[in-house]
Amino acid sequence: MVPASTLAAGSVGKVTTRYVDLPEPVGLDCGRELHPVRVAYETYGTLSPERDNVILVCHALSGDAHAAGLSTAPAAAGTRDGFGAEDRDGAAGAALGWWDGMIGPGKAFDTDRFFVVSTNLLGGCRGTTGPSSVDPTTGEPYGPDFPVVTVADMVRTQRAFLDVLGIERLAAVAGGSLGGMQALEWAIMYPDQVDSIVAIASTHALHPQGMAWNAIAREAILRDPAWQGGRYYGTGRTPDAGMGVARMVGHVTYLSGPALHDKFGRRLQFADDIRYTITEPEFEVESYLRHQADSFVRRFDANTYLTMSRALTYFDIARQYGGGSLSRALRGVAARTLLIAFSSDWLYPPAASEEVHEALRALGKPSELHLIDAPYGHDCFLLEEARQTPIVRRFLAG
Amino acid sequence: MVPASTLAAGSVGKVTTRYVDLPEPVGLDCGRELHPVRVAYETYGTLSPERDNVILVCHALSGDAHAAGLSTAPAAAGTRDGFGAEDRDGAAGAALGWWDGMIGPGKAFDTDRFFVVSTNLLGGCRGTTGPSSVDPTTGEPYGPDFPVVTVADMVRTQRAFLDVLGIERLAAVAGGSLGGMQALEWAIMYPDQVDSIVAIASTHALHPQGMAWNAIAREAILRDPAWQGGRYYGTGRTPDAGMGVARMVGHVTYLSGPALHDKFGRRLQFADDIRYTITEPEFEVESYLRHQADSFVRRFDANTYLTMSRALTYFDIARQYGGGSLSRALRGVAARTLLIAFSSDWLYPPAASEEVHEALRALGKPSELHLIDAPYGHDCFLLEEARQTPIVRRFLAG
Repeated sequence: MVPASTLAAGSVGKVTTRYVDLPEPVGLDCGRELHPVRVAYETYGTLSPERDNVILVCHALSGDAHAAGLSTAPAAAGTRDGFGAEDRDGAAGAALGWWDGMIGPGKAFDTDRFFVVSTNLLGGCRGTTGPSSVDPTTGEPYGPDFPVVTVADMVRTQRAFLDVLGIERLAAVAGGSLGGMQALEWAIMYPDQVDSIVAIASTHALHPQGMAWNAIAREAILRDPAWQGGRYYGTGRTPDAGMGVARMVGHVTYLSGPALHDKFGRRLQFADDIRYTITEPEFEVESYLRHQADSFVRRFDANTYLTMSRALTYFDIARQYGGGSLSRALRGVAARTLLIAFSSDWLYPPAASEEVHEALRALGKPSELHLIDAPYGHDCFLLEEARQTPIVRRFLAG
Repeated sequence: MVPASTLAAGSVGKVTTRYVDLPEPVGLDCGRELHPVRVAYETYGTLSPERDNVILVCHALSGDAHAAGLSTAPAAAGTRDGFGAEDRDGAAGAALGWWDGMIGPGKAFDTDRFFVVSTNLLGGCRGTTGPSSVDPTTGEPYGPDFPVVTVADMVRTQRAFLDVLGIERLAAVAGGSLGGMQALEWAIMYPDQVDSIVAIASTHALHPQGMAWNAIAREAILRDPAWQGGRYYGTGRTPDAGMGVARMVGHVTYLSGPALHDKFGRRLQFADDIRYTITEPEFEVESYLRHQADSFVRRFDANTYLTMSRALTYFDIARQYGGGSLSRALRGVAARTLLIAFSSDWLYPPAASEEVHEALRALGKPSELHLIDAPYGHDCFLLEEARQTPIVRRFLAG
């Protein structure tokens, strides 16, 4: 635990994840209805009497509701045992929110002004109903019987959750990566209820190489015998081997080639010569990947990984809403749009944000696109807080 | 089988893989000696009376001795059962050599003029001694007891093999990717015996992102319980699941993002809507990857994959020969050098070839670098035959 006294100025301080059970079933794209649905959430700042200062922040593939501040709960309720809280860098014990640099007093999402709400996504493993939750019809975890959900289903769940809180309008919906997809989906699904969206390092549809990386990560899990067709809960065996490979693939796609070069080069793990081993890490980059894999499998559920990866691969607003046309899909958008892309992000490359920006501008809709020249790849959305902050603050003040 | 009548003009025709048992043990970088060593090879063209027209072509990670023509042997001797011959595109039944477009009468490596020799690499699974070969001290396949070999060890084995054939000098050593590494290693190890080298889509040392992809591919195999610590031969179980994931990772790194976009886009596998499935391929690119995985595991040995991947990751001529300096490592090179790189190759990017070229030029050594603007990524060295041919022919005529 980080002592409270070391919290930087601008922290939202200690926070607790809370839970809401939705009163109605959630209707899903696949045709099924899901009930009950519990949503894990955190809030930062104060809701205005007019309820007009709400920002919903949306997490990416492996995130959770704990977006800012220091968590007081060691583990989220409703998740399977063993998923301890862990910060985004994988340092055990610490529990700073995954976007703490962006959310707080005076920060990009300024809690002196805004009431920031963060939920764990539908299908998650950190408190919101997902594959590791108990299926009331069987009394067992859903596992592979959990519905295949879409980004639209995640947004519907967020909408139903905000209804419970009595929040109708959103000043903004914001997120990076899969979180940015949710922001775009909000602007299309609920145009009258969203004043603005902030989609960072995101896209209107993942490109085929990104689809391939996601498919490979899922294959690594599906092919692990310990996955057991998705029914591994309570068996004492979890698909850690496959999940580890999935995480390694993801991790390399989140970083840029030059960033890996600067961080590790070709440095050997031990001494200055090779040891002739195939089974052990020999180079620092190999050891780093194995560490990333090991720490991830301790905190994340494999079926949730599959669910999130599938949802972000399906996401394609031109197909969903435009009969293949991005312009047609965006026709009804009323929100002001802020797009931020990073020069070295090859998983969610700037070109995708430019396509959204151009389509919105051609429709006469207000859109801002900022390209930040930074070397860390897709992970920039979590790392380049200082350079995103003035852009986001100015946009939200507009 | 492709009927002989359909062979294009320029084919070397029907060929047979042959085998040589080396008379002496091969001394390895790791300090061990290996004996016996069998080498699988093919030759195309006619050896001149002066024995001065020999070109050694070197294969890449998953290749074999069958580089050109139509194989008459359905399976290589000395490999485990079930590895059928297959062309480089994975079409079952066909058995054209992996570089057939480059080797033959009138082709880049012109068999009207040159005697072209191709061997399966040390550590291979297609006839040359490797992890699936029988260890004479145990009577069982080596498996994990096979030595961890380097590119230098592969080259030493080729040298010893050529001695058996009575060939002292090479007019050229040529290869792409790992094959190009062997060409560079030849020029350094045997400077007096190599007139020229042709290193295509290759590098003096794999960059850290490439090392990461290779590490992930190996992890996928090592973590497959069917790998059984490498002692899977004869157990009826092979690590096909992990090998499949390894192949998928490799395959995506061999192609460029734009090539995947042009080939598959986001096209769905069936009909024009999604089916909400996580376990089955939904998009064409997902189905393609699974097919690539399935066809690869039928023809390739997992321990050989590990061996080759480790060797190409270790390869680093500056570390091996220059105390960290590429220039110092290349000081003794006497061969003329031809380097070809492809604009879209992000695994063996043009910058690496440029570094070799600049270092050679600074040393006053003859080097040519050709950058071919082509969209298919690393696979260009197998696909862009028409554009490589005049470059290689002109160089070899020089």
